[in-house]
Amino acid sequence: MRIEAVDIFYLAVPQLRDIGDGSQDMALVRVRAGGHTGWGECEASPLPTIAALVTPPSHSACHGVLDSVLGERLDDVADIGRLARRVAERGLDLLQTPHAWSGVEIALWDLLGRARGVAVWQLLGVAQPQPRRPYASQLFGDDPQQTHDKAVQVVAAGFTAAKFGWGPYGTGSVEADAEQVAAARAGLGDEVDLLVDAGTVWGEDIEAAAARLPALERAGVVWLEEPFVAGALAAHAELARRCRGVRLAGGEGAHNTHLARQLIDHGGVGFIQIDTGRMGGIGPAAAVAGYAAGRGVTFVNHTFTSHLALVASLLPYAGQPGGRLCEYPVESSPLARGLTRDHLEPGDDGLIRLPEGPGLGLDLDLDAVSPYLQEVEIVLNGQTLYRTPELVP
Amino acid sequence: MRIEAVDIFYLAVPQLRDIGDGSQDMALVRVRAGGHTGWGECEASPLPTIAALVTPPSHSACHGVLDSVLGERLDDVADIGRLARRVAERGLDLLQTPHAWSGVEIALWDLLGRARGVAVWQLLGVAQPQPRRPYASQLFGDDPQQTHDKAVQVVAAGFTAAKFGWGPYGTGSVEADAEQVAAARAGLGDEVDLLVDAGTVWGEDIEAAAARLPALERAGVVWLEEPFVAGALAAHAELARRCRGVRLAGGEGAHNTHLARQLIDHGGVGFIQIDTGRMGGIGPAAAVAGYAAGRGVTFVNHTFTSHLALVASLLPYAGQPGGRLCEYPVESSPLARGLTRDHLEPGDDGLIRLPEGPGLGLDLDLDAVSPYLQEVEIVLNGQTLYRTPELVP
Repeated sequence: MRIEAVDIFYLAVPQLRDIGDGSQDMALVRVRAGGHTGWGECEASPLPTIAALVTPPSHSACHGVLDSVLGERLDDVADIGRLARRVAERGLDLLQTPHAWSGVEIALWDLLGRARGVAVWQLLGVAQPQPRRPYASQLFGDDPQQTHDKAVQVVAAGFTAAKFGWGPYGTGSVEADAEQVAAARAGLGDEVDLLVDAGTVWGEDIEAAAARLPALERAGVVWLEEPFVAGALAAHAELARRCRGVRLAGGEGAHNTHLARQLIDHGGVGFIQIDTGRMGGIGPAAAVAGYAAGRGVTFVNHTFTSHLALVASLLPYAGQPGGRLCEYPVESSPLARGLTRDHLEPGDDGLIRLPEGPGLGLDLDLDAVSPYLQEVEIVLNGQTLYRTPELVP
Repeated sequence: MRIEAVDIFYLAVPQLRDIGDGSQDMALVRVRAGGHTGWGECEASPLPTIAALVTPPSHSACHGVLDSVLGERLDDVADIGRLARRVAERGLDLLQTPHAWSGVEIALWDLLGRARGVAVWQLLGVAQPQPRRPYASQLFGDDPQQTHDKAVQVVAAGFTAAKFGWGPYGTGSVEADAEQVAAARAGLGDEVDLLVDAGTVWGEDIEAAAARLPALERAGVVWLEEPFVAGALAAHAELARRCRGVRLAGGEGAHNTHLARQLIDHGGVGFIQIDTGRMGGIGPAAAVAGYAAGRGVTFVNHTFTSHLALVASLLPYAGQPGGRLCEYPVESSPLARGLTRDHLEPGDDGLIRLPEGPGLGLDLDLDAVSPYLQEVEIVLNGQTLYRTPELVP
């Protein structure tokens, strides 16, 4: 097959709120080749991502993504890796490249699976994908009472693990943060795993983060996520040395395998969290999963948007030991929720499983999300470089 | 002062060639505040950079750059640092942010210097900026003879150091590369410093790079630049261990201080090369210069476009010991060359010096580059988000 078309769609909810909810807009990618269609999602700012796909080149190491993809062959899994290298080399100096390529890469896996009538996990050589224990991923409440109520809700919904993050956490006093964490623990009870996400709030301020550790240790928190920005390796390593039971988690900001490996090699993280919609798709994320496994670090997915993105995020560690946690958004926007007809609902055992169907195994509901479609046009010297395509299967 | 306007211009030469020459287009930034104007240049793909400036937000950690800058106060040097943190936090998940912010940051320094009637090096607390020894930075010839002729030319032009990079180097056999390096050395003679830039050609293939070391050692090469992609720390460190006289150089791909520090801490580089047009401007680059100095690593600028970018790239180490090398493009496009009326020409001693005038100290020739202006329009739901502004002082 040859890659005939790559289209990208910018969707957004009408009243976007200035909160840490990444499901409020979407950069959705459709690829066509050999009469087949595949879909993927970039976890990325849509407009710069569109521009990174369609821009004219600046020089030999600064090409738009489409320039390196359109017309290329896609016959085998190896072609996806070859295209990934081609895009990385020719897009080296275009910083947005990995975010833009991620959705394309995922769509190529979806397409190849559909063309062959097999699931992507089969293409990845996984005999039997392992079930995952979903943790309810949500924002902290505005105050401890709200957080407590949210915790009670997710327990009632059957979750055995829950993560609270962002919101006021880390922005006020050490005591206020301790109250938030205690409220979450009280609401969850003693049996449910509690995870805390600081959303890089302390930059690289080790003491600010360390001051929160006693409350996290008291509440038996499994991991403290993103205390610092992803590149602050020395700060991560020093904080990790000060932890007793709590372990550090991070990696969602990694937009290539090197950044993820550095957190593992030099950051002292216990959990490496990869978003396939940012780090260049399923292939490089699977490489990180393998790298982590060899170093005693637990790979977990990062995702916060649609179930299309959720499936893509689960694939890189589909063959790794079962029962492990996975991120599972519970406060997604109607846009993110509406994108797929099928959803990965926890089974009677509380675990979620990858779909069996071809490709990513999900049926999209384009009619449901078409009201969110944004009409974009980019014109360069009188020539239309991009105009929102028709959102059809 | 309040920041009243930030405008960006996409300029490009008409016949862009698919070679490693980053001077063929330009993302030029103009900032206005308090009746003053400052200019800066992003070393970045212009169209995604424009989009990263003007895009609507996706969520609280994914804002367009202008959203975090327009209307903000600019009274002091500290405001530039404050804005840098604000942009980084609110643009955390927009990958293109550092490239887009870089030109704005540089323009803010230029503006603040002009408003106060002092040079930016004075704002940086440098009493007397040190002269630099320019190395002629150019591409390898298509064959050894061409490279030899280029070397002869730069010696005739008075340069005491020259760098050859990209082109065929690293793409063919070890022997072919050895011939290129030997031709460069023969053309330069024994007295001129020779630097070699591999342009990340070996990805992270240590053996491919190591196979080139004997020829580089024979030719007395000062540094081998970017044998690998910036994130491949372990590969850098291992290659550094195998070097005898040659040292490794890298860092132009670093889009934040963390990535640069990692190359210093874990990559074994002897020279750290920072492009202020990519890593978030002059402020963070100066921080890296200080960090490097404390660790026995030599900071040098990376730049390949206009003399506006050249001046910005020299400022972060303006106060560090004199005589040190600096990158000096000798094959720039008429666009890059034409942007400024003034140029930093080597003096009788062969050294270049920062301008004394206020701000960046350069006078732009907008008429000269206006033929290169690209007309861009970005429309979102019928509303114009961006249209190429008038290119006036």
